[in-house]
Amino acid sequence: MINVGIIGFGTVGCGTIRILLNNNDLIKSRTGADVTLKKIADLDIQKDRGIVIPNGVLTTNVNEILDDPDIDIVVELIGGIHPAKEFILKALQNGKHVVTANKALLATEGQELFQAAGKAGRALGFEAAVAGGIPIIKTLREGLASNHYQSIYGIINGTSNYILTKMTDEGKDFKDALSDAQSLGYAEANPAFDIEGIDTAHKLTLIASLCYGIPLSFNKIYVEGITKITAQDVQFATELGYKIKLLAIARQVGKEIELRVHPTMVPVDHLISNVNGVFNAIRVIGDAVGETLYYGRGAGDMPTGSAVVSDIIDIATGKANTSNNQIGASTNNGYTIRDINDIESLYYFRFTAMDSPGVLSRISGVLGENGISISAVIQKGRKAGGSVPLVVLTHNARERDVMRAVNQIDSLPVVSKPTMFIRVEGGD
Amino acid sequence: MINVGIIGFGTVGCGTIRILLNNNDLIKSRTGADVTLKKIADLDIQKDRGIVIPNGVLTTNVNEILDDPDIDIVVELIGGIHPAKEFILKALQNGKHVVTANKALLATEGQELFQAAGKAGRALGFEAAVAGGIPIIKTLREGLASNHYQSIYGIINGTSNYILTKMTDEGKDFKDALSDAQSLGYAEANPAFDIEGIDTAHKLTLIASLCYGIPLSFNKIYVEGITKITAQDVQFATELGYKIKLLAIARQVGKEIELRVHPTMVPVDHLISNVNGVFNAIRVIGDAVGETLYYGRGAGDMPTGSAVVSDIIDIATGKANTSNNQIGASTNNGYTIRDINDIESLYYFRFTAMDSPGVLSRISGVLGENGISISAVIQKGRKAGGSVPLVVLTHNARERDVMRAVNQIDSLPVVSKPTMFIRVEGGD
Repeated sequence: MINVGIIGFGTVGCGTIRILLNNNDLIKSRTGADVTLKKIADLDIQKDRGIVIPNGVLTTNVNEILDDPDIDIVVELIGGIHPAKEFILKALQNGKHVVTANKALLATEGQELFQAAGKAGRALGFEAAVAGGIPIIKTLREGLASNHYQSIYGIINGTSNYILTKMTDEGKDFKDALSDAQSLGYAEANPAFDIEGIDTAHKLTLIASLCYGIPLSFNKIYVEGITKITAQDVQFATELGYKIKLLAIARQVGKEIELRVHPTMVPVDHLISNVNGVFNAIRVIGDAVGETLYYGRGAGDMPTGSAVVSDIIDIATGKANTSNNQIGASTNNGYTIRDINDIESLYYFRFTAMDSPGVLSRISGVLGENGISISAVIQKGRKAGGSVPLVVLTHNARERDVMRAVNQIDSLPVVSKPTMFIRVEGGD
Repeated sequence: MINVGIIGFGTVGCGTIRILLNNNDLIKSRTGADVTLKKIADLDIQKDRGIVIPNGVLTTNVNEILDDPDIDIVVELIGGIHPAKEFILKALQNGKHVVTANKALLATEGQELFQAAGKAGRALGFEAAVAGGIPIIKTLREGLASNHYQSIYGIINGTSNYILTKMTDEGKDFKDALSDAQSLGYAEANPAFDIEGIDTAHKLTLIASLCYGIPLSFNKIYVEGITKITAQDVQFATELGYKIKLLAIARQVGKEIELRVHPTMVPVDHLISNVNGVFNAIRVIGDAVGETLYYGRGAGDMPTGSAVVSDIIDIATGKANTSNNQIGASTNNGYTIRDINDIESLYYFRFTAMDSPGVLSRISGVLGENGISISAVIQKGRKAGGSVPLVVLTHNARERDVMRAVNQIDSLPVVSKPTMFIRVEGGD
C-alpha cells in the first residue's frame, strides 16, 4: 500500500483527489497500485469544494505530510516558487517521492530539485506540468525513447490558443478576445504568463531538457507573446492559407538546439492548425517514428489530475525514474542552444507604407539586398496619400538578415509604422 | 546488460535492428538501458538488407535464440500464427521476456500467451502490434491509467485509410484506389485482412481487453470492411459535411462494451476526419482526462521498430508488466459485449429507387413506422423511369430498428437495389 499526501487543495488538487477517491478500485485492478490518500494540507480547509473527504485527512499543517514516515508520495499542487520549493526539498530529504504540476518552479529551479531527487534516489514526477492531461512526458521519455528527436513543437498554453481561436473564428481583436477568456475563467486577471509566452517557455524548458539531455535552459529560450497580433494579421494569415498559433518549438540542427516560443503561422492543412480553443497539441518528429501528434486538454482540474495520478501510479508500481537519468543533468553531449539570429524560417511581413508609386519596389529591393526572396505579396485597398498594408511572404531566410532588412525598411521615409513580422512553419 | 534475440529479419525486423544498432548510445544515455543485439534468426540470412550486421549475430537456427541462456528478451517478428506461437511459448518457458508485433496471433491466441507470460513472471510486450509507432498501448495502460475509458475509437489500418483518402481526394472508386495502394506497396496482393476490417479488429481486440479488463474477444467484434463503399457514397458524405473512415470503436454503455469495426462517417471538423493516407489516429475519451487524440504512422519498418524498441527498453529498465495485470485476464468486472443490434447511432442511407411520385413518402413512411427520424435528405438527378439515389441522414436510431426498416424498404416494388447504409459518428 502506498500513502499519498497532497499539499494544495485548489483546482488541480480537487481533480487529483476526486480521481484518487472515485477511481481507486479501477486503478488497483488495472495497475496493481494500491494507493491511499492519507492527508491533504491547505491553509483553507473550511471551504466547501463539493468533495466528501474522509475524517482526519484534512490538515492546515503541511508538516503532518512532510514529516509523516508513513507517507510515501508527496504531491505539491500549491504552485509558485516559495514555499513550494522548500516543501519539495524537505519531502525528498525525508525520503519521499514527489509529484508536482509546478512548471514555473521546475523550469527555473528544477536543476536543484532534480539533483536532490537523484541524490535521494526518489522520483520527481512532473507529467502534469506539461500539457495537462496529455501524457507527453511519458511519451517522450518512454514511448519514443529510442528516437533522436528532430523536432518537437506544439500548442501548450490553452489561454493563448483560446484567444487566437476567437480572433480567427470571430474576427475579434486581441483585447476583446482576452476579455472573453478572462470572463470565462480561461485567463487570469493578470494574464502576462500566458499571453507573453512565459508559461509556454516554462513547459518547453522541461521538454527540451528531457528530449536533448541538456540542462534546464529557461533563460536561453527566445520568447515572444501574442499581444502584438492584430485582427488584420489573422485575416491575412487566413487569406494566405495559414492560422496563427503560439508555438513552443524545439528543433535539433546539427549540434545546436533551437528553443523558441513565438506566434507562428501554420498551414491550414496541418493537424495542429486545427487545434482550437483551450486544447493543446504537441507534434513530435523522431528519426525512427517519423511524425506523431498528441492532443488533449492542457489544463483543468480533472485532466491535470489524470496526469498527477499517472505519476503516482508509476511510483506505486515501481515504474518511475529514481536514479541517474532524471532530467536537468547535462549529459555532455555537446549540444548548445542556437542563437535566435541564426535560425532559418519563412516569414510573414506586414509593412505599413504610404500608398505611393515605387513603394513595393523600394521594400522588395531592401529584402533582395539582404538575400531574402519573396514567395507571395498581398497589396490592396487604396487610400490616396494615406498608409496601406503591404503583406509579403518569404522563402526560407535567416533571422539575422530579416532583422537587418526590417530595420532598414522601417527607416525608409515611405514606411509609416514599425513592420509586423510573424515566423511561418513550412514543410518538415 | 540485456541481450536481445530477434526472430524474423523482414520489414519490422530491419527497422528494429537499425534502431538498436544506430541509436544504442542514445538509448543508454537517455534511459540507462544497456541493450545488446546478440542474435538474429531468419531462414534467409544471405539477402542483402542494406544493414551491416556484426559477425556471429545471424543464424538460421531459431533455437540459438530460444535456448541461449544469455538472451534475456526474444523479439518475435515473423508474423502469422505458427510457428510464431510456439516460439513465444518456448521463449517464455525458458524464462525470457517476449516482445512481438503480431496482432493476429495475440488477438486470436493471446489468452494462452498472456497466461503463459503471467505464469512465467515475464513480460509480453506488444506496443508494436497496435498503431505502429504511436505509443498507444503505453498511453492506455499507464499514461491514462486512472481513467474509466468512455470510448476509444480510431483509424488503425493504414491501407484502408489510404484507399478511403484516395477515394475522397481524387473521386476514385474502390477498385482503382485499391490498385493504387497495391502498386505502392501499401496493400498486399491479397488485401482481405486490411480491406475487410480484420486487421483493425485484431488491434481493437487488444485495446478493448487492455481498457476494460475483459478477455480477448476477437470473435465477438462486429466487423464490416470498406469494399462496398462507392465513389458516390464518398461524394454524398462530402456534401453532407463528413468523411468516410474505417473506424475501430470501443465504447462503454453501462455494463456493456460496444466493439465494432465498420466504415463510419465522421464530421469534417473532427480532427480524426483529417487523418489521411497511411496515417493512424486514436481518439480516447476518459472520465478524467476528457478527449485526447494520438496520431502517427501505423506501419513501416522504422515506426514499428520504434515501438518494438520501446518495449525492449521498458523490460531492460524494469518498467514492463510481468505479473498479474497482463491483458486477457478477465477481472470479473461484469462487462459483457453489446449485441450489434442494440447499438444506437446516426445512419446514412442511400436508397436506389424508381424515380416515380410517392417514393420519398413510401420510404420515409417505413422509417417513421420503425421509429427512425430523418435529419437530412438529398434527392436529385432525374432519370425518367429509371433509378435514382435517395440519400437520407437520420437522428439517433437503434441498429435493430434500422435493419428491420431496411429489409422492409428493400422489399418495396419501387426500390430497385439493396440499400447502402453507413453509420455516422455525431458528437462524442
